[in-house]
Amino acid sequence: MTTYFRDNVDHMAPYVPGEQPAAGARVIKLNTNENPYPPSPRAMAALREVDADALRRYPQPYAQPLREAAGRALGVDPAWILAGNGSDDLLAMIVLACADRGRKIVYPMPTYVLYRTLADMQAADTVEVPFDEDYTLPVDALLAERGAVTFIASPNSPSGTRFANDRLAALAEGLGRHHGVLVIDEAYADFASHNAMELVARHENVIVLRTFSKGYGLAGLRLGFGVMRPALMAGIDKVKDSYPVDAVACAVGAAAMDDQAYKNACCAKVVASRDRLANALRAMGYTVWPSEANFLLAGTPDGGSAAPTYQALKSRGILVRYFDQDRLRDKLRITVGTEEQNAALVEALRGDTSQ
Amino acid sequence: MTTYFRDNVDHMAPYVPGEQPAAGARVIKLNTNENPYPPSPRAMAALREVDADALRRYPQPYAQPLREAAGRALGVDPAWILAGNGSDDLLAMIVLACADRGRKIVYPMPTYVLYRTLADMQAADTVEVPFDEDYTLPVDALLAERGAVTFIASPNSPSGTRFANDRLAALAEGLGRHHGVLVIDEAYADFASHNAMELVARHENVIVLRTFSKGYGLAGLRLGFGVMRPALMAGIDKVKDSYPVDAVACAVGAAAMDDQAYKNACCAKVVASRDRLANALRAMGYTVWPSEANFLLAGTPDGGSAAPTYQALKSRGILVRYFDQDRLRDKLRITVGTEEQNAALVEALRGDTSQ
Repeated sequence: MTTYFRDNVDHMAPYVPGEQPAAGARVIKLNTNENPYPPSPRAMAALREVDADALRRYPQPYAQPLREAAGRALGVDPAWILAGNGSDDLLAMIVLACADRGRKIVYPMPTYVLYRTLADMQAADTVEVPFDEDYTLPVDALLAERGAVTFIASPNSPSGTRFANDRLAALAEGLGRHHGVLVIDEAYADFASHNAMELVARHENVIVLRTFSKGYGLAGLRLGFGVMRPALMAGIDKVKDSYPVDAVACAVGAAAMDDQAYKNACCAKVVASRDRLANALRAMGYTVWPSEANFLLAGTPDGGSAAPTYQALKSRGILVRYFDQDRLRDKLRITVGTEEQNAALVEALRGDTSQ
Repeated sequence: MTTYFRDNVDHMAPYVPGEQPAAGARVIKLNTNENPYPPSPRAMAALREVDADALRRYPQPYAQPLREAAGRALGVDPAWILAGNGSDDLLAMIVLACADRGRKIVYPMPTYVLYRTLADMQAADTVEVPFDEDYTLPVDALLAERGAVTFIASPNSPSGTRFANDRLAALAEGLGRHHGVLVIDEAYADFASHNAMELVARHENVIVLRTFSKGYGLAGLRLGFGVMRPALMAGIDKVKDSYPVDAVACAVGAAAMDDQAYKNACCAKVVASRDRLANALRAMGYTVWPSEANFLLAGTPDGGSAAPTYQALKSRGILVRYFDQDRLRDKLRITVGTEEQNAALVEALRGDTSQ
């Protein structure tokens, strides 16, 4: 034994989240896909009502009030819902329960970088299947890998593209033949025209993940959940923390879930702004993929590196996301902000002489 | 592939936390070692001050305000502090970073059952070294196992016994020769006469864990941290969640940490009650181990099963902890409550005819 750590941990690169400027910094933050609108007033009221005894005692192991609120809002059995400390926590549980050396993690690329990090933590074999330029879901190529877990972000990050349910159903069906789990990561579903929740009822091997960080404007709360049938719940549950959801997140999340009208109104504003911003970027020569999320993937007008533009924006107090990885160095991922924030971004891009 | 899960997950037993009655249930809850006193008024004030923008945005990845408050209170470098979603989250990170097939987890028994659960999740080899009846730390027997990770809860649960720093230092020294990590789980240190924090500065391979769930009366918040030197931080950090501590827990925990006087006063009351309760139990014929925690391990007067007494108390609305495992079936673990709660317990035990 030469170091304190497992070999795979010694050799892995950690996940690096988008930059988080200090509270109060005068920055237009369009880099980590937060909602530009605040959480529901009902969620804030629930926060104010948390009492000392709720903090003193351990929370409910399954965040029952949250489960019930989510069940009501989504029309699913609360017993099919497993909540965690952000949907990242669910991703980690799934990898821990299902993946290992010889039990593969499969996903299309480019996508959410954390899938790779979690697989590396578990020393699982990883297969990255390339998307084509249109981000068509490569169902056959994914099926051929026979993953123990196949991750599909839909809408996908950083492309914003959503995948049709018949394609996802074909993937679930094929993977089910060898007990492969299909995780449909719907972090951005609140901004999309359709979602894949109905597949959980139809396929025993499907898990749909949701988060409060995007549509509900509660990224600071760390709250997400998975919807899955009992056959999957049985194993994932074994590796969950005793109390993954704290008492505050349970109460605030349940109140936010109960206020669908507010969430839907915020998301509708973001969607309208997204489409205006996409048009403005296209008018400037950027290639913009059709997005159903709260961000846009924008390729530089000349196909050159986007790094100078990223830096130029940053120097003007506007943070967007630049990924220093294959197929993304000529692109920026831009979170849709308020109308004012988007206008400031467009103005800054017009003034950018790095292109 | 015959199931969805890894073999070790298929075969493992999940951790079962102590019973959590519904909020508002009329129960005297002496089963999961919560503090009977509420959190600091300054912590509650910090909760009220959390604003919508703090919830809207992702929290700080390292919970910097909390780190700094803990560093001030404990006299350690904030950079040596890694916070998580409860100290259980730190335990999970350590096991994930360090343990594997062929990289052993070692601990004395009986102790916190979660160590075994976490090792099983990771398919790590587990060695359980028995304590003697006096709960003397079996340093040589632990060293002989050459664990990748050795867990010592001090004060230990369920015995309440604390281990002297010279014994822990000898263990750290020996384990360090083969890069074994020594985790000193000080969840109950706030109720103890001494703690082992000084060992972190002296031994590169030591991690001391602390929690807000016990002394600070914030079990509902899910907040804990590890103190470790950079050599260990480098690897543990790689497997941490991007944002393990939410914005509320960061703010509330920092305020609680800054109010040491309040926490110390609450803990002093618990300690005084603990000693009175121990005397009352001994007077009734129970064997009570010398505890430096906020609970007592009490062996039945006749050495018979403690299960009937556990049930009799439960039927009278008093929850204590009964562990259906070797060496513990003739004992109860009793959380120290308020004076009134402890008196109700003693009265109920006097009326118990199951012994």
